Amino acid sequence: MKISMHAMAIDSFVSMLTDLSQLLDKGAQHAKARGIGEEVLVNARLAPDMYPLARQVQLACDNAKSGTARLIGRDPPRHEDNEKSIGELKARIAKTIDYLKGLNATVFEGTDERKVQMDLPGNLVMETSGTQFLKDWALPHFYFHVVTAYDILRHNGVDIGKRDYLGHVAAYIRPK
Amino acid sequence: MKISMHAMAIDSFVSMLTDLSQLLDKGAQHAKARGIGEEVLVNARLAPDMYPLARQVQLACDNAKSGTARLIGRDPPRHEDNEKSIGELKARIAKTIDYLKGLNATVFEGTDERKVQMDLPGNLVMETSGTQFLKDWALPHFYFHVVTAYDILRHNGVDIGKRDYLGHVAAYIRPK
Repeated sequence: MKISMHAMAIDSFVSMLTDLSQLLDKGAQHAKARGIGEEVLVNARLAPDMYPLARQVQLACDNAKSGTARLIGRDPPRHEDNEKSIGELKARIAKTIDYLKGLNATVFEGTDERKVQMDLPGNLVMETSGTQFLKDWALPHFYFHVVTAYDILRHNGVDIGKRDYLGHVAAYIRPK
Repeated sequence: MKISMHAMAIDSFVSMLTDLSQLLDKGAQHAKARGIGEEVLVNARLAPDMYPLARQVQLACDNAKSGTARLIGRDPPRHEDNEKSIGELKARIAKTIDYLKGLNATVFEGTDERKVQMDLPGNLVMETSGTQFLKDWALPHFYFHVVTAYDILRHNGVDIGKRDYLGHVAAYIRPK
């Protein structure tokens, strides 16, 4: 009745980032078809004090990359937050996927019980097991930014649906 | 390096549904303070062809409830989709949490390898292992509706942030 930490982290991150990259393709197609500058979508927000699409994508990548690195006790690769176009955001996703795919399952050995400690603003510290960190922090933050990126695109009229949000699930589906 | 199916499913669903219930409280407070009818928030959407807040909450509950039931090979309890107020939506969440908390960890025995088969519209069928079902279907759908509910509230000016989205994480945080 157990699931590997490697599968739960890496499979989730890689599959959903792949789907996010395809959501961005649909955004680019929409912008082109309507004669809208891509930067309009890249800078679109759901509220004036929420992050725009570009930052949502960067944070989805960062939660996957840094969450995984923290879990396995390594330093994550540094990626600058300088993406200005959908193509650049897709490249950021691709770099993140490359990093995640490059990690061997063996480096996740013991991560379920590893003590994870993270400094937070306000002179606070969060202490969890690896399992708690993945389940209660890394995955919920990751999904937050993936879904909000989806919601921004959808709010701006891009023709996407659950089939796009979960594009990778098509591999499990067949005619009856 | 493994995490239990029970913890990954039930802990994630129960914690995030608890947080969602508190997000709804903030929505109710906001509506009251501004003299806005609660039904305005309950019926608010991010796009004309997206579901409103009420349906997002119902679907978050359904994905948790039916996803878990499918995983353990039982029929889920039936809940009617008739909630019209924030109080009723919170009661729907509470019923869902009760169901999830009532399941003993032992019923998750073998669910990682259980074959899960689900009919989909268009005469299609999805076939996965229990692990794949949880990781690639139940959790991403669940988070989709929780985050979209959050985004609807936030888009409508409710003063919420990550501290509310992940309210339950406060239990892991202490002064340095």
